[in-house]
Amino acid sequence: MAAVAAANAEALPSYGGDPYTGELQSLVAAVFETPVAVFPVATGTAANALALAQLCPPFGGVYCHEIAHIATDECGAPEFFTGAKLIGLPSPDGKITIPPLEAAIAHAESMGVHHVKPAVVSLTQATEWGTIYAPAEVAAIAAVAQAHGMAVHMDGARFANALATLGCSPAEATWQCGVDVLSLGATKNGALCAEAVVFFKPELAADFGRRRKRGGHLWSKMRFLSTQLLAYLKDDLWLSNARHANAMAGRLAAGLREIPGVSVLQSVDANEVFAALPEDVVARLEREGFGFYRWPAETAPGTVAIRLVTSFATERDDVAAFLAAAARRGAAD
Amino acid sequence: MAAVAAANAEALPSYGGDPYTGELQSLVAAVFETPVAVFPVATGTAANALALAQLCPPFGGVYCHEIAHIATDECGAPEFFTGAKLIGLPSPDGKITIPPLEAAIAHAESMGVHHVKPAVVSLTQATEWGTIYAPAEVAAIAAVAQAHGMAVHMDGARFANALATLGCSPAEATWQCGVDVLSLGATKNGALCAEAVVFFKPELAADFGRRRKRGGHLWSKMRFLSTQLLAYLKDDLWLSNARHANAMAGRLAAGLREIPGVSVLQSVDANEVFAALPEDVVARLEREGFGFYRWPAETAPGTVAIRLVTSFATERDDVAAFLAAAARRGAAD
Amino acid sequence: MAAVAAANAEALPSYGGDPYTGELQSLVAAVFETPVAVFPVATGTAANALALAQLCPPFGGVYCHEIAHIATDECGAPEFFTGAKLIGLPSPDGKITIPPLEAAIAHAESMGVHHVKPAVVSLTQATEWGTIYAPAEVAAIAAVAQAHGMAVHMDGARFANALATLGCSPAEATWQCGVDVLSLGATKNGALCAEAVVFFKPELAADFGRRRKRGGHLWSKMRFLSTQLLAYLKDDLWLSNARHANAMAGRLAAGLREIPGVSVLQSVDANEVFAALPEDVVARLEREGFGFYRWPAETAPGTVAIRLVTSFATERDDVAAFLAAAARRGAAD
Amino acid sequence: MAAVAAANAEALPSYGGDPYTGELQSLVAAVFETPVAVFPVATGTAANALALAQLCPPFGGVYCHEIAHIATDECGAPEFFTGAKLIGLPSPDGKITIPPLEAAIAHAESMGVHHVKPAVVSLTQATEWGTIYAPAEVAAIAAVAQAHGMAVHMDGARFANALATLGCSPAEATWQCGVDVLSLGATKNGALCAEAVVFFKPELAADFGRRRKRGGHLWSKMRFLSTQLLAYLKDDLWLSNARHANAMAGRLAAGLREIPGVSVLQSVDANEVFAALPEDVVARLEREGFGFYRWPAETAPGTVAIRLVTSFATERDDVAAFLAAAARRGAAD
Repeated sequence: MAAVAAANAEALPSYGGDPYTGELQSLVAAVFETPVAVFPVATGTAANALALAQLCPPFGGVYCHEIAHIATDECGAPEFFTGAKLIGLPSPDGKITIPPLEAAIAHAESMGVHHVKPAVVSLTQATEWGTIYAPAEVAAIAAVAQAHGMAVHMDGARFANALATLGCSPAEATWQCGVDVLSLGATKNGALCAEAVVFFKPELAADFGRRRKRGGHLWSKMRFLSTQLLAYLKDDLWLSNARHANAMAGRLAAGLREIPGVSVLQSVDANEVFAALPEDVVARLEREGFGFYRWPAETAPGTVAIRLVTSFATERDDVAAFLAAAARRGAAD
Repeated sequence: MAAVAAANAEALPSYGGDPYTGELQSLVAAVFETPVAVFPVATGTAANALALAQLCPPFGGVYCHEIAHIATDECGAPEFFTGAKLIGLPSPDGKITIPPLEAAIAHAESMGVHHVKPAVVSLTQATEWGTIYAPAEVAAIAAVAQAHGMAVHMDGARFANALATLGCSPAEATWQCGVDVLSLGATKNGALCAEAVVFFKPELAADFGRRRKRGGHLWSKMRFLSTQLLAYLKDDLWLSNARHANAMAGRLAAGLREIPGVSVLQSVDANEVFAALPEDVVARLEREGFGFYRWPAETAPGTVAIRLVTSFATERDDVAAFLAAAARRGAAD
Repeated sequence: MAAVAAANAEALPSYGGDPYTGELQSLVAAVFETPVAVFPVATGTAANALALAQLCPPFGGVYCHEIAHIATDECGAPEFFTGAKLIGLPSPDGKITIPPLEAAIAHAESMGVHHVKPAVVSLTQATEWGTIYAPAEVAAIAAVAQAHGMAVHMDGARFANALATLGCSPAEATWQCGVDVLSLGATKNGALCAEAVVFFKPELAADFGRRRKRGGHLWSKMRFLSTQLLAYLKDDLWLSNARHANAMAGRLAAGLREIPGVSVLQSVDANEVFAALPEDVVARLEREGFGFYRWPAETAPGTVAIRLVTSFATERDDVAAFLAAAARRGAAD
Repeated sequence: MAAVAAANAEALPSYGGDPYTGELQSLVAAVFETPVAVFPVATGTAANALALAQLCPPFGGVYCHEIAHIATDECGAPEFFTGAKLIGLPSPDGKITIPPLEAAIAHAESMGVHHVKPAVVSLTQATEWGTIYAPAEVAAIAAVAQAHGMAVHMDGARFANALATLGCSPAEATWQCGVDVLSLGATKNGALCAEAVVFFKPELAADFGRRRKRGGHLWSKMRFLSTQLLAYLKDDLWLSNARHANAMAGRLAAGLREIPGVSVLQSVDANEVFAALPEDVVARLEREGFGFYRWPAETAPGTVAIRLVTSFATERDDVAAFLAAAARRGAAD
């Protein structure tokens, strides 16, 4: 906020000709230790849809996990911007695995012009199940993609959370293991409204500016996006925010595991906890005003799956209050 | 062919103003016993994609079987024409069943604007597995669709084959059990290149002519399409062709079931037979020049699934020759 | 800015469930004296493209001035979101006139399915030439649109500037003279990044939320858009900003008219001044760092057209400095 | 017709694997004296829209004459397939001229990401006004295109008619003067339904087969298209048909010029004649059943412009009958 307010006080060229937008290019290149082309946008859906449109022809296929955000939560935006088809791959933990990916690509190739052309693999890091890919796992998937002339996109709406857990460098988590383009999220981790499409091969970004404009995603006062991203990446704010959120998620998961009748459903690698709780407890927590989503997963009879998300703003007391409420038995308020 | 040649001899108005195109409207209405709006096109992909575009907004969802032709064999044409998303539902025999359909719709509705809006259910009759829906099964699916404000499309590339087996009237198989729009195929059953989009509620066809033109599917010499469809539907040619093809498929399936080591994989309801044969036999049949596709289905170790399609032109000797070849053991030619 | 900062301090529901977004609906309804459906977005291009997509089918035509922003400055965004065609109409002052509009519609209708269907008239208020439509002029255009079943869209990127000059109520300038949907701009008149699509017939907005999401234009932290628009519309800030900008433009035009060799090209109705100046003077002004665009208009030999835009932040001294510089003869700095 | 009937008698591989489709590649290469990639489709709109989609990115611009068929008669198909914008250039005779082309490109380039990217110039040969480009004129336009990295498309719905008049080789009229892709029409010159997209740089055709399939324009029985085109191009049938049609148009124009009160509006270079006749005569000719269109051109008071098209099937007696009727005075039948 302070960064945006400071930018507001000045009169500067519009549509990205301001110094902040230029500074952002340099900072992202430094953070990722490689030349990049960076394009700020206001929403994660825009970042993903535009990035995929740049990588995938209209007759192409984008291979992703079957519950990937791009496949289920963006109201068809990736299809709209690409004209292409998303092909969902199953797995229990939200991570793409090699065998179904290779089988789907082989099927497409056997069909010739009757099927879309395999063009992109899109990974979510951290995944929709709160799990994370190790760099070696990303590299193995990228190797399949490259063998078939496909590009690799990473949906990094929660990239900082993944990075905080992995403990590796941003470069090691992305282009060094084969990622071509990253949707780098900031909104879920502290910004007002700021995401960036980061091309690790700047030549892949040709004419991307026109795509962004054509999607209505070029701001005349671009500095308000750039300054958010600058503040986010400077002084490791993104990582300290993410570390805090991850720590709160870990604390939450640990507490839930101690409550009889509650089970944690997935490895808690980032800032999301999926847990199955008795149905009456869930209903009571909702009545008490706790904010979470019910999640469409199969659980033991009488229980319901919920998703809990922690953030830079989650406090220890928030976690303790939720755990205390979840531990109380029954439906009474 | 003869019908097309006769039409060629005359000089007539272009773009559908000819008498044949008008006659086609009347004939289809008579065959289906209800007022219709009929639009001939040259390919099944065009018929399906245009029909779906008429029924589904760009932010909508089309629910179909996960191996539906529209989902896997049309290179994204339905997505291109609709702008929408296809959502594949699983089942072992190619037929949509109610529980996954209802679950998918409920999930979409729970997500609000984050997910596409349920707009169309598309059934294939006969299915990609050569099975057929009974009218009561179609009616049950249509009831779900109607309860959620969705339209019902039937991909009838093999509609005649289904009808020949069902033994009911065209009306009973379509609008009387809730079908709003039918892609009526003729090419697979004898025509040169002719399919028709049939609207059973003519008001649903508003501006469809512009969609067809915009897709490049309006012929200036439309009579060449119309005459094919007239010849196809007159004197029950479509049904006699289909009955013959179905009979040949039945004969083929019966013969295959008698061969040790061969299993027929699905109910043979129309003109397609899916069978698992020893891998070396399949390879030999391919070398001997028999025409069929390998099919991506799981089968017993050492066997391969293949798809066999019969047509109006398949003769008893063709069937016998294939069965004899399939019955020979081993890989020797 | 202060409004955004205040919103930042709270934790609120995401995706528009916050109280600010609800308050905005009420305030806009009060300002326009009619029930409305209001959708904030971050850019004018998004507002226009989404509004037009809601009004125009993919086989439709949008009739606008040939230099309308939607036709020339949005990199095809309206075509992308609508799938439709923009048809540009000529006139010397940026305002659509009736005869070419009627001729273009008549031509389209005579062509049947071979041409796009007339669907929308889009007016810019104030226009790209800085001129404004009187309500009676809008009403006359809207009457043509209604006679052909077409909707009326107003691109109001500079709506406040037009309103400040017209001196009528927001209602009189829009729905009372036949406007169905308004793209209400705030960015050019003081906001960080905020525009709103305002539907005066709320039933026209059905499913608009899905279109917005599908375009990547739904913010998770929607309150940052809503609070900008609330602050903009409250206490007539939008009108006082616009009045100031218009006054500065009037002062600029008056000064320019007094300089020998300089001519003002259009009626100065809002906050834009188009003038022809000697080419060497223009080049010198550019070197001196004044900010303006050269404009592609035909002018007397040796002169160049430029566009000057004033804003809420333009000061009298800025105007005086520009006029002094423009009055100096020759190319010397 | 005879060619199609012969192809019907055989059982052949589907989707273009038949020998006719292969033979067509060789024949077109021989006719044009260069390696080509040829794709048959059924309509001219499909040929144009698919060709342009191959050449133009979705954020691109296609520059054409303002009355080009692609701009006014295809219901937005080129915009649908490309996602791009068509930019119409004026001229009195239907031919693109250099100055407005260069001005439009320069304007686009000055606007950066705010405007579509100049990507294709599309010429119609013969034009919608029945005029033709000399190869040197095409070369001059192609030089402008190449200087800006743009491709050159020729809409050759009446290419044979142009070629018959030019008297040069197909190569000289196309790739030797800079044409990259030709929509080669046959339907207007004798075929049932056959057009071909001809790429003179085969590498430009990468993945074009998927585009065709995605548009619903891949026929399973492709041989019926290929055989039409083979018959059309063999033994110079296309040129003899075109020569005949052009001769009839010349005879028609000569006769019209001799009738007092009638004027021929354009140079008659191919098989179209545009003439202004007294309004009552036009009305009478319509009542008498002659087939022609009224044309939206400005003519002297009391007269109306009409378009007359001759074909391979037009006979001398047809021309004589029309001229006799046109020469009679007044409205009496």
